Amino acid sequence: MSKEVLKSAIQSAQKNKGKGNTKLTKKEVIQQALELVEKSKICLLGTNGEGGFPYIKAMLNVKNEGLKNVWFSTNTSSRRVQRLKQDNRASVYYVDENTYQGLLLIGTIEILQDIESKKLLWTEGAEIYYPLGVTDPDYSVLCFTAKKANYYHGLTNLTFKIE
Amino acid sequence: MSKEVLKSAIQSAQKNKGKGNTKLTKKEVIQQALELVEKSKICLLGTNGEGGFPYIKAMLNVKNEGLKNVWFSTNTSSRRVQRLKQDNRASVYYVDENTYQGLLLIGTIEILQDIESKKLLWTEGAEIYYPLGVTDPDYSVLCFTAKKANYYHGLTNLTFKIE
Repeated sequence: MSKEVLKSAIQSAQKNKGKGNTKLTKKEVIQQALELVEKSKICLLGTNGEGGFPYIKAMLNVKNEGLKNVWFSTNTSSRRVQRLKQDNRASVYYVDENTYQGLLLIGTIEILQDIESKKLLWTEGAEIYYPLGVTDPDYSVLCFTAKKANYYHGLTNLTFKIE
Repeated sequence: MSKEVLKSAIQSAQKNKGKGNTKLTKKEVIQQALELVEKSKICLLGTNGEGGFPYIKAMLNVKNEGLKNVWFSTNTSSRRVQRLKQDNRASVYYVDENTYQGLLLIGTIEILQDIESKKLLWTEGAEIYYPLGVTDPDYSVLCFTAKKANYYHGLTNLTFKIE
């Protein structure tokens, strides 16, 4: 890409300023943040990776409960799961590159292997990832719980606790 | 979103498998990774944030040099810049949510304030972010240098050093 993306972002910022956009209330922020989550096909999962570097990976946005919980399916044998056992601090990020909205959730991850959690995210054909089916020991569910959120859009940039 | 995204990902994986897709060579991986960088409007910057949590923020994809260097503009006064002075480990992530391609670059960030670097990312109208213009002390340039990359697409998942 090039400076074109910068120019387009500037135009969007100028438009917001021109409209005299005011900052959103917390209620409006939560509403917009939830809408962003609902419309997102993927989200980004941040974990503390090898050597203390922050790692990022795109995950399918399959299931969430408000802004508090997000569930992901993953391979038990993956290096990331091994690292999460030692350090479960994580973040989940949603972004719309066209409207310049972003939501960062900060929290921790629990690794689940019980059958109810596994069924929660299972769908027909998922054997392509987990050949032994829903009980495949290499199939784990990550349950992310947010403690804090930051949402920005236009002139609004708000950090708030998730209860 | 819902299980629909999962179903769509499974269909894509089945198609790859059906086509008998072979793994890409390292040369092909680098080629595809560069194409992904070039077509991306935004990328995700991962840093070590408050309390040891991995933070993620979308950044405009304005300038890069191969897979080795990526430049970003930012506010000198931002909390992230203050934290980067203490811990400059970072990652930059590119993703195409339609083709399920992803590229993770792992490296470090240098905070630049020299006028050449500042001019490199400047464009008309950027005063909306930095009112004092290109010499605004609140305008800094982040230069990311990658040491390692991970690229995945279809059946390929390759980690390699960036020299």
